[in-house]
Amino acid sequence: MPYFDAASAAPLHPVARQALLAALDEGWADPARLYREGRRARLLLDAAREAAAEAVGCRPDELVFTPSGTRALHDGIAGALAGRRRVGRHLVVSAVEHSAVLHSADALRAAGGTVTEVEVDRAGRVDAAAYAAALRADTALAALQSANHEVGTEQPVAEVAEACRAAGVPLLVDAAQSLGWGPVAPGWSLLTASAHKWGGPSGVGLLAVRKGVRFAAQGPADERESGRSPGFPDLPAVVAAAASLRAVRAEAAAEDARLRALVERVRSRVPGLVPDVEVVGDPVRRLPHLVTFSCLYVDGETLLHALDREGFSVSSGSSCTSSTLRPSHVLQAMGVLSEGNVRLSLPRGTSPEDVEAFLGVLPGVVASVREALGAPAATAPAAAPGAGEELVVDSLGKRCPIPVIELAKVIGDVPVGGLVTVLSDDEAARLDIPAWCSMRGQEYVGERPAETGVAYTVRRRT
Amino acid sequence: MPYFDAASAAPLHPVARQALLAALDEGWADPARLYREGRRARLLLDAAREAAAEAVGCRPDELVFTPSGTRALHDGIAGALAGRRRVGRHLVVSAVEHSAVLHSADALRAAGGTVTEVEVDRAGRVDAAAYAAALRADTALAALQSANHEVGTEQPVAEVAEACRAAGVPLLVDAAQSLGWGPVAPGWSLLTASAHKWGGPSGVGLLAVRKGVRFAAQGPADERESGRSPGFPDLPAVVAAAASLRAVRAEAAAEDARLRALVERVRSRVPGLVPDVEVVGDPVRRLPHLVTFSCLYVDGETLLHALDREGFSVSSGSSCTSSTLRPSHVLQAMGVLSEGNVRLSLPRGTSPEDVEAFLGVLPGVVASVREALGAPAATAPAAAPGAGEELVVDSLGKRCPIPVIELAKVIGDVPVGGLVTVLSDDEAARLDIPAWCSMRGQEYVGERPAETGVAYTVRRRT
Repeated sequence: MPYFDAASAAPLHPVARQALLAALDEGWADPARLYREGRRARLLLDAAREAAAEAVGCRPDELVFTPSGTRALHDGIAGALAGRRRVGRHLVVSAVEHSAVLHSADALRAAGGTVTEVEVDRAGRVDAAAYAAALRADTALAALQSANHEVGTEQPVAEVAEACRAAGVPLLVDAAQSLGWGPVAPGWSLLTASAHKWGGPSGVGLLAVRKGVRFAAQGPADERESGRSPGFPDLPAVVAAAASLRAVRAEAAAEDARLRALVERVRSRVPGLVPDVEVVGDPVRRLPHLVTFSCLYVDGETLLHALDREGFSVSSGSSCTSSTLRPSHVLQAMGVLSEGNVRLSLPRGTSPEDVEAFLGVLPGVVASVREALGAPAATAPAAAPGAGEELVVDSLGKRCPIPVIELAKVIGDVPVGGLVTVLSDDEAARLDIPAWCSMRGQEYVGERPAETGVAYTVRRRT
Repeated sequence: MPYFDAASAAPLHPVARQALLAALDEGWADPARLYREGRRARLLLDAAREAAAEAVGCRPDELVFTPSGTRALHDGIAGALAGRRRVGRHLVVSAVEHSAVLHSADALRAAGGTVTEVEVDRAGRVDAAAYAAALRADTALAALQSANHEVGTEQPVAEVAEACRAAGVPLLVDAAQSLGWGPVAPGWSLLTASAHKWGGPSGVGLLAVRKGVRFAAQGPADERESGRSPGFPDLPAVVAAAASLRAVRAEAAAEDARLRALVERVRSRVPGLVPDVEVVGDPVRRLPHLVTFSCLYVDGETLLHALDREGFSVSSGSSCTSSTLRPSHVLQAMGVLSEGNVRLSLPRGTSPEDVEAFLGVLPGVVASVREALGAPAATAPAAAPGAGEELVVDSLGKRCPIPVIELAKVIGDVPVGGLVTVLSDDEAARLDIPAWCSMRGQEYVGERPAETGVAYTVRRRT
């Protein structure tokens, strides 16, 4: 049963499992204690820290283990901001960071600080010059992911690091998605990662802080992990995390090439197999194992369930698969279609047969979802003679992808040059109506507030 | 090889190990996902929450899993304080809480709040009336452990809970040491615990917050665990924690009786086997598995190493075994001897033979440490005729137990009624010189600041 959501959580690597089992026996005691069980635990902890530091490319005393990647980001950002409190309270992030970074930014705003979110292009990449321009005299910290978790696009970390160095601003790199594939380009000041993204166990994050970077851990004091991550360490998980990081790095070059080719196959074939699909993210400068596409006129949640019934586990940034009723902030920032969104992130060892099987079922699954939703035909018919120049579609209270489907159904009812206005209170419409226009060669005129919801206006061009 | 430090970390319970292995296979995926691996993980998480909630005595939706007991305390206290920010910023704790509580109190002080530390008696117990008297109109939260982690004394949780209820103040009970033995008396508003204290894995704490208790999680937002514990959950560890809690509870009554008798054996026999020993903590209202005693004229670190060489793993609250050069705050608050301190906390399954073996080696180990340190004989000789009425011993720069040994060596050099003053800059002397006086029938006159360190004065009485 193919599982294609490694970017959420990768299945446990065999080396991680083996190391975890051994460390359950040898590493359950308190590494701060003087007796033999404690000393044994301390040896394991020290060895794990050395192995992880080597993979990260830092000194062991620069690296601490945290309970998750999220906690590494929360605690790392808070500590770095507090360490440079006297410089200022300004934070720079990209608009497509992980929610743990954006939530940290929200916490800073709530505490009176300021945040600049650097925009990204349609591939999801920040421009290094734009990022550099966001750095200010009062910037305490800059944060940038090594690669995006939803669309796989690699960020220009080396260039941004150079700009940060020139500006005297520490750069935190969120390497959660990439660390298993290789070290981050030099120049970072802080680095975070999460073990269950590379096949390590859940319950382990990494936070590396370069010597000389001002850092003031926040929250109550605790003597564990250099005072940077409170609480008794989950030593068996830490040992498993370090061992599996070393193991996946040893396999990284071969797996990178293999999975990169499988992803390329998906990227190139999906648009031919499924009509009205947008493959998003950078086609080349990307993570090897991750590909994302969106399907017009498809309800993401129904699509996921249908794929699940066929045996495929994937994730989606569509609004209707989340509790927030908002499409993924990454797709929003990129300005790409969000409806019917599917992310495949292939775990190591994914076979070509699994990918072929997925490509085999996808067209039928999408077609059946579209049929159930009453999606329109690909080409709008000519308008009836005497049709009005303007139409209003009331899609209030209807969720993605219905507003776009209703728009597509009526576009043929106005002549070329005529206008269709869609009233919608669904947040996804803001993204998906312009995306539909661009995919269908129609003109997106703009939006304006309506009595309820928002009025989105489209001019028929074809 | 007997391991007697279960209060730091208990060896993994077989049920925990078994559950962890099963959950590594079934519970590695993201429980927030819709596909089958995610749904399977969600089922495991829900079942673990129900089992843990049943053992705690709360509703499943009142309980979240945290990465450690320390994080449960840090986050629980911060959230409860913030939730009642409008009432005030006063926190009540006992003087013998776990350092995670006291560090949270320090953080509150640093942020402008106030803290009352309720004193304890020589057994380490707070007086419920004194605790009640500390509650004020601006008290946002009260915290009390169910039982002390260093000396085993049970706290009057039910009485304090009643006082808090009457005052309208939520009570947080730190049940880390006791939860494996049974539920906490009703009346608490928040409850915390730590799985590796009951034989569960490390990496799992519990935080229960009763419905209706005002709680505002601090730090960046995160949707996991009802917004109260950020980060991807360590599901295999959580499953193992819940399964082992259920298992140890099933065995609790029998193990309680068995270990209670073994501890009673240690409590009653150590004073006869080793001269100049003080067994501390409540002899009856105590944890079943924990006993602490202190040995005059003994260096705690040397004693621990000597016991380790004999195959016994124990911990100590002596200053010389910690990095802080201060004796344990618990022993300080109790006002009992801290030098040569030994804590035994017996894991489940400890055999009478293991305890007998410990009692067999202890006298020789203590005697050899004392001999190496040149400890004085038990009875002070009569002073030489014409000896001065007053003596000053300069112990500056010398660490516990040397100042007490030097005092004991010269007490015979003054006549009965004469004074000996010890100059010491060792924090332990403040505790250990009065304790020595009380154990040896001498009179502790008092302390005063000296040019360097502190002058402690003793009057010879026997």
